[in-house]
Amino acid sequence: MTRVPSFAVTSTFLGTKCSEITAAYCIAGIPLDIGTTNRSGSRDGPQAIRYASRMLIDGSHPSHRVETSRLEISDLGNFQIVLGDLRKSYSLIEKQAKEIKHLIVLGGDHGVTLPLLRALKSKYGSIGLVHFDAHVDTWPETSGQALGHGSVFYHAIQEGLVDPKRMIQIGIRSPVEPEVYDWTINQGVKIITAQEVHSSPIDAIVQSIFSKIGRGPTYLSFDIDALDPAFAPGTGTPEIGGLASWQVQAILRQLKKVDFVGMDLVEVAPAYDIAEITSLAGATIVWEYLCLMSI
Amino acid sequence: MTRVPSFAVTSTFLGTKCSEITAAYCIAGIPLDIGTTNRSGSRDGPQAIRYASRMLIDGSHPSHRVETSRLEISDLGNFQIVLGDLRKSYSLIEKQAKEIKHLIVLGGDHGVTLPLLRALKSKYGSIGLVHFDAHVDTWPETSGQALGHGSVFYHAIQEGLVDPKRMIQIGIRSPVEPEVYDWTINQGVKIITAQEVHSSPIDAIVQSIFSKIGRGPTYLSFDIDALDPAFAPGTGTPEIGGLASWQVQAILRQLKKVDFVGMDLVEVAPAYDIAEITSLAGATIVWEYLCLMSI
Amino acid sequence: MTRVPSFAVTSTFLGTKCSEITAAYCIAGIPLDIGTTNRSGSRDGPQAIRYASRMLIDGSHPSHRVETSRLEISDLGNFQIVLGDLRKSYSLIEKQAKEIKHLIVLGGDHGVTLPLLRALKSKYGSIGLVHFDAHVDTWPETSGQALGHGSVFYHAIQEGLVDPKRMIQIGIRSPVEPEVYDWTINQGVKIITAQEVHSSPIDAIVQSIFSKIGRGPTYLSFDIDALDPAFAPGTGTPEIGGLASWQVQAILRQLKKVDFVGMDLVEVAPAYDIAEITSLAGATIVWEYLCLMSI
Amino acid sequence: MTRVPSFAVTSTFLGTKCSEITAAYCIAGIPLDIGTTNRSGSRDGPQAIRYASRMLIDGSHPSHRVETSRLEISDLGNFQIVLGDLRKSYSLIEKQAKEIKHLIVLGGDHGVTLPLLRALKSKYGSIGLVHFDAHVDTWPETSGQALGHGSVFYHAIQEGLVDPKRMIQIGIRSPVEPEVYDWTINQGVKIITAQEVHSSPIDAIVQSIFSKIGRGPTYLSFDIDALDPAFAPGTGTPEIGGLASWQVQAILRQLKKVDFVGMDLVEVAPAYDIAEITSLAGATIVWEYLCLMSI
Amino acid sequence: MTRVPSFAVTSTFLGTKCSEITAAYCIAGIPLDIGTTNRSGSRDGPQAIRYASRMLIDGSHPSHRVETSRLEISDLGNFQIVLGDLRKSYSLIEKQAKEIKHLIVLGGDHGVTLPLLRALKSKYGSIGLVHFDAHVDTWPETSGQALGHGSVFYHAIQEGLVDPKRMIQIGIRSPVEPEVYDWTINQGVKIITAQEVHSSPIDAIVQSIFSKIGRGPTYLSFDIDALDPAFAPGTGTPEIGGLASWQVQAILRQLKKVDFVGMDLVEVAPAYDIAEITSLAGATIVWEYLCLMSI
Amino acid sequence: MTRVPSFAVTSTFLGTKCSEITAAYCIAGIPLDIGTTNRSGSRDGPQAIRYASRMLIDGSHPSHRVETSRLEISDLGNFQIVLGDLRKSYSLIEKQAKEIKHLIVLGGDHGVTLPLLRALKSKYGSIGLVHFDAHVDTWPETSGQALGHGSVFYHAIQEGLVDPKRMIQIGIRSPVEPEVYDWTINQGVKIITAQEVHSSPIDAIVQSIFSKIGRGPTYLSFDIDALDPAFAPGTGTPEIGGLASWQVQAILRQLKKVDFVGMDLVEVAPAYDIAEITSLAGATIVWEYLCLMSI
Repeated sequence: MTRVPSFAVTSTFLGTKCSEITAAYCIAGIPLDIGTTNRSGSRDGPQAIRYASRMLIDGSHPSHRVETSRLEISDLGNFQIVLGDLRKSYSLIEKQAKEIKHLIVLGGDHGVTLPLLRALKSKYGSIGLVHFDAHVDTWPETSGQALGHGSVFYHAIQEGLVDPKRMIQIGIRSPVEPEVYDWTINQGVKIITAQEVHSSPIDAIVQSIFSKIGRGPTYLSFDIDALDPAFAPGTGTPEIGGLASWQVQAILRQLKKVDFVGMDLVEVAPAYDIAEITSLAGATIVWEYLCLMSI
Repeated sequence: MTRVPSFAVTSTFLGTKCSEITAAYCIAGIPLDIGTTNRSGSRDGPQAIRYASRMLIDGSHPSHRVETSRLEISDLGNFQIVLGDLRKSYSLIEKQAKEIKHLIVLGGDHGVTLPLLRALKSKYGSIGLVHFDAHVDTWPETSGQALGHGSVFYHAIQEGLVDPKRMIQIGIRSPVEPEVYDWTINQGVKIITAQEVHSSPIDAIVQSIFSKIGRGPTYLSFDIDALDPAFAPGTGTPEIGGLASWQVQAILRQLKKVDFVGMDLVEVAPAYDIAEITSLAGATIVWEYLCLMSI
Repeated sequence: MTRVPSFAVTSTFLGTKCSEITAAYCIAGIPLDIGTTNRSGSRDGPQAIRYASRMLIDGSHPSHRVETSRLEISDLGNFQIVLGDLRKSYSLIEKQAKEIKHLIVLGGDHGVTLPLLRALKSKYGSIGLVHFDAHVDTWPETSGQALGHGSVFYHAIQEGLVDPKRMIQIGIRSPVEPEVYDWTINQGVKIITAQEVHSSPIDAIVQSIFSKIGRGPTYLSFDIDALDPAFAPGTGTPEIGGLASWQVQAILRQLKKVDFVGMDLVEVAPAYDIAEITSLAGATIVWEYLCLMSI
Repeated sequence: MTRVPSFAVTSTFLGTKCSEITAAYCIAGIPLDIGTTNRSGSRDGPQAIRYASRMLIDGSHPSHRVETSRLEISDLGNFQIVLGDLRKSYSLIEKQAKEIKHLIVLGGDHGVTLPLLRALKSKYGSIGLVHFDAHVDTWPETSGQALGHGSVFYHAIQEGLVDPKRMIQIGIRSPVEPEVYDWTINQGVKIITAQEVHSSPIDAIVQSIFSKIGRGPTYLSFDIDALDPAFAPGTGTPEIGGLASWQVQAILRQLKKVDFVGMDLVEVAPAYDIAEITSLAGATIVWEYLCLMSI
Repeated sequence: MTRVPSFAVTSTFLGTKCSEITAAYCIAGIPLDIGTTNRSGSRDGPQAIRYASRMLIDGSHPSHRVETSRLEISDLGNFQIVLGDLRKSYSLIEKQAKEIKHLIVLGGDHGVTLPLLRALKSKYGSIGLVHFDAHVDTWPETSGQALGHGSVFYHAIQEGLVDPKRMIQIGIRSPVEPEVYDWTINQGVKIITAQEVHSSPIDAIVQSIFSKIGRGPTYLSFDIDALDPAFAPGTGTPEIGGLASWQVQAILRQLKKVDFVGMDLVEVAPAYDIAEITSLAGATIVWEYLCLMSI
Repeated sequence: MTRVPSFAVTSTFLGTKCSEITAAYCIAGIPLDIGTTNRSGSRDGPQAIRYASRMLIDGSHPSHRVETSRLEISDLGNFQIVLGDLRKSYSLIEKQAKEIKHLIVLGGDHGVTLPLLRALKSKYGSIGLVHFDAHVDTWPETSGQALGHGSVFYHAIQEGLVDPKRMIQIGIRSPVEPEVYDWTINQGVKIITAQEVHSSPIDAIVQSIFSKIGRGPTYLSFDIDALDPAFAPGTGTPEIGGLASWQVQAILRQLKKVDFVGMDLVEVAPAYDIAEITSLAGATIVWEYLCLMSI
């Protein structure tokens, strides 16, 4: 029961000393933020999330009772990227991701999810998606550029990486063109707005997820801006009216029966954070996922 | 459907290129904060709110489906004021406001609402008021000074600018002298405390507003400190226990049938903000108002 | 009804000019943070809380209608401590606390509660405890050190300072070893997690407190990290998913019939704060307590 | 030789327990910032300077060897002012200042120097002035307002409060209208620009001061923006190219033979500070003055 | 002589109301930061510099006596760029720059200088370069990417955009591969390290510039990280030991006889700034340039 | 010549992948700050310095031309300490330090230097000391506590760990009791105040070091507060009037002929830093030392 002071740990995720690609769950950072359309800085997200995770190392998850130090994880460090070139970076990311069994990525901007889903396609085909975000991210392009953090799920759907009939978006609330919104719905995606989360019991949200996702391999993509800026100021494209962190935890803790095959936590931009609260939120959500996997 | 990166816009409100006084809705800043009794700095509110509004330019309101780029707005820049002299500044503000059809003001401290209401009196007589705030702002004076941001509605009622029978205050929670509170109630004002908002369904709050305001010209005065300091740290006189931004949005979105004739958003003090979250909250609330007007 | 601008007061708690040990309620700071296991800095908590309290001086409590300027309080300044030596510091604290009738302490890290409870034992024997916190603080040790802010209630129970059958913890949510959690429960302590607060009516929480505490002398120990980091970023060991400040106020305001004999407000670390919101939360909670005492 | 930890002192200037108006040197704060033409917030200067002064309490001045704890000082708290009214505030300040033998004021904006000089006139007539600043502060008016922090020495000269033949300004570097600059010079004022300080030996600056000031009662008015923003970011009207703090200390330490009769340290705006470095600079400069007086 | 409070101006550079491409000096922002190898965020530089420039609007330059309001400038807003694609962005920048007579660019990362120099080549051929920076920026590539902010002058020399025999770098101090440094020298470039600036009289630096640049069209490229992080923390790639802002001003003020044909001020990253000191340094250096041009 | 973007490295010091105790130079962190008498937080110094060191990885030292990637270093992680107990922590530190050939420590507060010097005594006997600091750190005690960061060199001299005849202190400027100062001088220590550094050529300072240190094993203890708060705000006990970072670099680069046997860089407190400038200063000074060692 000896606890090491949290300021004394090295800064891999949860202080893991393992960096083997064969671990059950591999953490990797992707310090790429050049697909960002608003405030940049998520390139520093991976390291900030790792450092904040020191606060979660000791003990077990309070409801799942999973012991953190027994999580079968490794930290692979950061993926290689190419400076100033989205296309080449996405290729590199896809290639690196393909070698890993169960990958949890620390972003980086949300654009990195596209090559991550591409990497999963060869293994699982078109998969389900639980997507927490303030934005639908299904814009076909941004200022003439097809790639970037606002277009990731447009391409994911178009490329058949995710099955829109098994896709649910939670926390949506940003301004959006009606045709983008409607296109998303028409593909079969279920959208639960932030206002709906605030006015519904948690159990109803969880049931919506189960109804939409059903069985089959599923990915969790968590944009930290799903949280309200009060809970996550350190991000590039904040929108008010967002989720509280307790709501997110309450939902995630009930998703044991979803068959998750990978996860990312994106858009933490430490330069806009205060007292590490956004980095800690990011680290905690990844830890919630890992503990859920390990029940 | 081309989106321009939000960092590339100029800093008028919502990037409008119009500065005509004849626009349907005119935005103006009032960089006056010398009526502040606590932390100063709301003089920089107008520019910070304008800059934060860049994040809202693209697309449409997610529930009203009003397209932001089609809002019939202009940005007049900032009103003239007189340094270190509240009385002269109020005269100047009143005079400038009178020339404008439908004015939305970015404060500045809450004291600026007094000359704004004076300007409306000639057009509308005594009007209704929907007032979001942590404070009743009906103190007859502050340290021997009759004017200032704590006395604005005392004078507004005394001068017959607002009809206290059609006045409702939402989010109230600060320490207050019982005689000030009771005087306010006794004038006919309805007070909904922050605690009441937290323990009531949104619909009940909306019904209270409708009951109190009824028909007739009405003004919306929104002090950003109605929000909890977690959601709006960048303000001069924070009080804990305040509203969440989603609550404010949920209420405002249902007020279509109120006959609003003007609005102000006051007390954003950027020097105390983090990551623009308070400025963004201010900008978003004004945008909610503009979209509501334009359904 | 003259209000003095809040920036013009001196910085004792609530601007009191009294520093008599004979006052009904004595405030004292304990600038000790060397028992902290994570981020340090709560040594500066007492002065930051005092300074933030300037915002609460005028008027009365909005629901209790107690006039702040009539609170029978004194501010004794800060207790003496010994640099770099927890044991000697605790002895000094206990000795100083014993001389005071009803003490409200501004911490400092949570470790200071141990000598404060020791000081109360001679007067009241084993007492009840209402404990707001993200952490159970019943670890028997931390990295081989028996004392410190994570072990305070382990010792308090072991030394018979508090009666675990009359002890309730509210807001708990951190990672924890199951054996530590179970030991706590098995002693008779009632734990209400943060998730339970979020999903229960406030009245139910209050009833749980009454059921557990019953009659008899009771202490209120409030670790500011019971609040969510959104509401209290300025603390050493934040955990997401925490309480909102309005929840805490709603609970405290109903506790009139609990027989409180002392209080502490600990773990405010101003170096991590933004715009004084954590210090203000700390000051307001102490003021809630003082007003509750004075109804 | 026992040193008390600096975090354990109360927050009067240098922790003095004396508040007697009869002390040899009386400190008073003037929390007035409504004469500010740029960023506001110097109203919080007095308390921030006092708090920062805790770091200087122990020991003696390193070159004068004056023991800080033996300085014959008192802290009178803050002067009364009138909210939102410069004229009435100046009257009140003058009246309060007149009662004090040797006053050191912690501002507040630079406008407060005008009533302070008026108060000295009855005692000393027209006096000498050593003025550190980035700005000449001899504008006849600002946007139609005669008072305010940019006009203080225009009025001081016009009212015969200072003798421009015995007035020297050090650190000047802001943009300025040539006619304002020339008027100042033509009155007889000596201006040493910041560039001249950087390119001259300290001794030459000191000799210039002696030449200009000569014998007779003299006032020291120190605007913290004389320092470069690197050394003093926490101020309202920063100008790059300013003085280093070591230069200011080197100059001040040689001014023993000037007959100073009062001092102010103005324009510290803590909301823009980092890590208290500006407040500490302000506190240290006042402490340099007090030690110089006490050799 | 009426001065408008600086908080009341709109946010074009120096508050100019002109946006004509035919102005003698045209300001444009380039919010591109995807070529950044370290901390990002310079995309927000243009707007922050513009906003900070409000502090310089009134009056004249203190030594050149040029009146700011008479500068013949326009502010064209921001250049178009392409999200996430350096090559396309550079093409667009070059095209837009070509239409402008005398362009002053607010960056953005230093990479933008490459297309700006390309645009000048058609007009002037190979030109001289005065380059302030902590880094030589002559790396042939960065992680396999030929473009980006570290390679700009490698390409500028290789493409014959600048004449290395008429190129001088001032403030250099970062770690660097000897072969990169030597290649630069061998091209004919003169390097004055930051240490040499600190240990030389300003006049000697100015003479070195004159000797190297001589006659002929010359460009000024100013990377804000030439300044020490104390003076300019808000930048992506800080290096300690840098220049003081007064040194830069002293040098620039003597360069009247250099035939400048354009300028950029790059790498201001506001997210890392405090109290706008970096943005103000950037704005002031551009203003120094404009005043120098207008003597 | 391929450079990896600095945001992509893992956070050991200079990204070293070696953690062998047999390396020529071993880096270790000591996250202990409970001996701090003023602002705490240096416990987070080691990790912040490591992270900041990412900016120095590529290339070579600009004057020594030592290639950073060829430095024969390892990073051992952080030393074990005991929470809340200075004595036990010092014993542990001494024991761990003894096993290492040439140790460079990242503090932590300055108190950690005492056990580090004790560890060196067995190898080298009484050694020379080059000590950069704002404070003499020769107080015999602080508030009745013999240990702590203000007493480290009192004990080091008393215990014969350093030879005061071969000890020099540079940058001294804090308030100090004359008897403490005189005791230090009388032991034979040479003190060069910050004012003396500012008014002397760098070469003269270097000669003073050579004269005092001569031959024999010597230790470099660098308290980051030797730098002015403008250059190093992120520290616990700032004093204005301090050194510029370029001065420190200019001095260190000439110390090749001193026989250094170990080094520490202490008192970096990241919670008070801005934009990592203090952490970067700390990292750069350690890197200067390592490059100097490797010429």
